[in-house]
Formats: sequence, structure tokens, C-alpha cells
Amino acid sequence: MALLFYKDPEHSDDIVPEIRRRRPDLEVRIYPDLDAPERFDYLLGYDPPRELLEKLPNLKVIFSAGAGADALLATAGLPQVPLLRMVDDSLAELVSEFAAAQVLAWHRDLWSYRDQQTKAQWQPLPLRRARERRVGVLGLGAIGQRLTRTLRTLGFDVVGWSRTAKTIEGLPSFAGPAQLFQVLQQAEILVSILPLTTATHGILNVKTLRELPRGAVVVNVGRGAHLVESDLLALLEEGHLSGASLDVFDEEPLPEAHPFWRHPKVIVTPHVAGAISATAMAEVVTTQIARFEQGLDLHNVVDRAEGY
Amino acid sequence: MALLFYKDPEHSDDIVPEIRRRRPDLEVRIYPDLDAPERFDYLLGYDPPRELLEKLPNLKVIFSAGAGADALLATAGLPQVPLLRMVDDSLAELVSEFAAAQVLAWHRDLWSYRDQQTKAQWQPLPLRRARERRVGVLGLGAIGQRLTRTLRTLGFDVVGWSRTAKTIEGLPSFAGPAQLFQVLQQAEILVSILPLTTATHGILNVKTLRELPRGAVVVNVGRGAHLVESDLLALLEEGHLSGASLDVFDEEPLPEAHPFWRHPKVIVTPHVAGAISATAMAEVVTTQIARFEQGLDLHNVVDRAEGY
Repeated sequence: MALLFYKDPEHSDDIVPEIRRRRPDLEVRIYPDLDAPERFDYLLGYDPPRELLEKLPNLKVIFSAGAGADALLATAGLPQVPLLRMVDDSLAELVSEFAAAQVLAWHRDLWSYRDQQTKAQWQPLPLRRARERRVGVLGLGAIGQRLTRTLRTLGFDVVGWSRTAKTIEGLPSFAGPAQLFQVLQQAEILVSILPLTTATHGILNVKTLRELPRGAVVVNVGRGAHLVESDLLALLEEGHLSGASLDVFDEEPLPEAHPFWRHPKVIVTPHVAGAISATAMAEVVTTQIARFEQGLDLHNVVDRAEGY
Repeated sequence: MALLFYKDPEHSDDIVPEIRRRRPDLEVRIYPDLDAPERFDYLLGYDPPRELLEKLPNLKVIFSAGAGADALLATAGLPQVPLLRMVDDSLAELVSEFAAAQVLAWHRDLWSYRDQQTKAQWQPLPLRRARERRVGVLGLGAIGQRLTRTLRTLGFDVVGWSRTAKTIEGLPSFAGPAQLFQVLQQAEILVSILPLTTATHGILNVKTLRELPRGAVVVNVGRGAHLVESDLLALLEEGHLSGASLDVFDEEPLPEAHPFWRHPKVIVTPHVAGAISATAMAEVVTTQIARFEQGLDLHNVVDRAEGY
């Protein structure tokens, strides 16, 4: 048995000893250490290229090295084997914590005060209680659900939206394209943690974002391609939106000349909302391999038609 | 029956109709509308001057218009009547929310990323989970206790300290001067929400702050006089501390020439962690007056020897 790790520059090698420690019988190699490629049963990677996939005739399971499967699904030549998303509690914790930090920063005017500080300006701004602030969360998967709990614990008035209807205790939630506008119209702060699919590509555009109340703020911790960047800039320009915290972008790293870097109302972070530790990733991979070997159902299998 | 409101510039008049609505029989005046000053039974104010106090011979209760009684206690000529601190859930909620927002901002490197943004620098920083981050909270009154709950809900490893021992479920807490250093030595992020008394004046100084682990961060939402500002600057300069979020200062508004305004590691906010709404303040005042009239114990009476 053998697993191939198609390593991104951002991934560390630490996962290899972590997998070996759990499964000494499993051979683990890092691409391009490939000889006898027909022996690989498992592939772990974020966006392995077509040329690699064509060299691996006996794959049984493919593990996405990230929470989304969009990069993998965009690869041509993906074999018809189970494709698993990386779902882990620590990732949900980190991403929802990061989104909550951004929501709190906007709610308590921390970005405005930081700007005032550069001008030595002592100017208290009007205070609002969290219960008077409605936050809309787009995407109610493992991360989105956790975020709604965190925000509600902090006292915010939270509403949620997802593609298919979800029942979450105490959370007013909406589903499907027809109800999207109902959520947008009431969200003073909008957080997107959607999966990237053909249905959500460009979902944050001039038409949808204009539905937000005047002065609203957008927090994107999903994927850059959810947001039509020029539409956001136009709505900030005309004052309909008052700010945005963006952790993901159409092109990453964000090009140096991109207007977001210097925009006074845009907070840029370098795709750091969450990451899965080597330990957590090794745990997910070896647990799923054990289930596969025992003929049990695999968890978090991607529905290729839906895209996540 | 009559109540005099010694109004600060930051207070609004809104409290007057709110009190009148609750107690139409109570006469409410705003200083300096004083004629026949001997008729005032109640005084509400943050720091009424001695000259005013000397004109009010029949006061029965004095209400501090803030959470702390330090400004009132510093006033000479304070009559020997019950002095009540303003304690309110909404204030505790706002201040602990603000402190939590600052803790999260440091925990998730939001201030560093903001600096990187000014240089169009895409540089992810190492991620830590909240459970791996120990936060020390100095002061376990209504606000401090609420803050420890909020931080623990967010997943942080929290320890507390107060003058007298407090038992708070699940919270490791320390008490008294002898145990202060034990808390400091383990607090990567230190939040102070102490009352200002002779015992806590200057409690954050070069000796105590040096006990913090190297690279620690200080968040002060108590009073400016808790912190020896020049000591903080020295410890930031030598790199022992890596940052501070300060909402309160020795002199407020913070003078334009103060080095905090331009210090790259100091986050300045203009005393905005919390405020009590006119509605909430009117509710506290009229409830306490009703208890006083019925001969019941008053709540949150200041112990003048302890200073809070």
C-alpha cells in the first residue's frame, strides 16, 4: 500500500512522519518521488496536475488537502474514485474564529479607530450592542455552522443561508437562490464561507451586494472567485458598502498593484483564516484509509455534480 | 424628592426623560439648574466638584455615573452617604466584548497584517490555536468575570486574578499581591479591567510587566492610571513586550504629542470599551432609589477603604 503526497509550497513535510507513525505499513512518498507509479493507492493533494493523474492508474481514493474540492475538481482527467474533502474540527475552529475576529473588529470600529490613530484623532464613535447588529452567514457547512454558534454566543443577531435547507436550533436560516436576497437585505455584516461551485462562482456581485443595507460590510473567508472584485470596488466607491475584510482573492498572492492593497476600506489578509495542522490532516487521512480498507462508508465524499 | 444630574460633556440629556418616565413623582434637574439646593436627595455624576457638594446639605445617596468610583472618591468633601457604583449588564457586555475583540485581533495577528497591507506584503504568519494561548485577566468583578467566560467560550486558556479570592467554575484564579506574579508569568496576553484604587494605581509597571513572558501583549480597558506609560514604552522598546491595546490613558483625550499615537506597536482607542445607555442608567438609578425608599439594602455600595 502506498500514498503519494502532492505537496503545495504552503504545505510542510511534517505530515509524512505523522502518517507513518499512525500507519507504519503504509508507504508514503512525496511527489516527484514516483518510481513504479502504478503502486499508489491513495493521493493527497490540493491541485495535482493532469499529467500526474495520468501516471497513477490504480488510485482508489483521492484526498483533497484543503477544505474545498474546487481546485481538484477543476483538474482534467480526475479518475472516477471517491474524492474526499478535508474536514476537521480544528479548521472549523480557526476559520470561524478568524471570521468572528473580523466581525468584532467592524462591529466595534477597530479599523476606523486605527485610521483615526494615524491622525492622532480622539473621536469616540456611536456604540451599538451586538444584539442590535444583524450578521448574515452564507454557507452552513461545518465551518459556517460553527461560526453561527460563535457569533450567537457573542450576542449577535445571526441569520444563515445555504444551498439546501438546514435546521439549526435557534438560527433563522434560509435556503436556495430564491431566498438569498432575504438574507442579504437584512445583513449589516455579511460573512461568506461558501464552497466554490459553479452555482456560487461570482455570487457576491453588484446585483447581490446592492441588496445589502447601505453601509454594510463584507467578510470573505470562502474563495476569491465568490466575489466579483471590481463590483465590490464600485459599491465601496459609491458608498453603498462601507468596508470589506478579504482573506481570499481571485489571484493569490494578491498582485502588488491590486487596488485592494491600498484601499482605505478594504482589510487584506494573506489567506490565513485557517489551516489544518499536519497532525490533524494525518489523522483524517489514516482514519479514512482504515474505513476504506474495512469497506465502511467514507466521510465527506465530494458530490461531483454539486461541486463539494 | 429631587435628583440632580451633574452631567459630563460625554453624557447625553437622554437620561432625564428616562428617569421621569419611570418616576414621574421625582423631580430631576441638570446642574447648574440648582435653585433651593437643599431639596436634592440624590446626586448622579461622575466627578462633581467640591463646591457643588458643599451646596447640597441633604443628599441621601450618590450615584457614580460610571463603573468606577475612583473619580468620585478623589473629590474632597464627599458627604458620608452611600456611594453607589454603576453596575449594569450592558456595560459588562460591551467592555468584555471590546476586550475580547482586542485579544482576538492580537491572537490572529490582525494588527501585523494591517501593517503588512500598507507595504503590499503577502506574508502568512504562524497560526496558533486559542487553546494554546494563555490569557490572564486582572480584575474579576462583573466585567472581568464576564470577560473570562467570553474568552473561554472562544477557546482560550484563561487565568484570572483579583484582590480577594474568587471561585469561578472552571477558571484557575489567583488572589492578592503575593499571587499576582504567578498570573503574570504565564499570561501571553494580559487584560486589565481592575478598579482604580490606591492598591492598583501603577500596578502595571516595569517590575510587574517584566514578569510577563517575552513577546507578551497588554490590553488595558481599566483606567489609565493602572499603567505606568513610560514603563510600557521602555519594555516595548527593548522587545520584552510585543504590543499593547490601550483604551484608557493618564490624560484623556490623549495629548496629540503623546508617543502612543505614533507607536507602531500600540493600538490607541478613545475610551470606548463601554458606555451605559441612558435607559440602562435610568433603570439602575430608579431601582436603587426604590430600594432606598423601602429601606432595603442597596446594591454595589462602594467600600471607601477599598476604593471600589
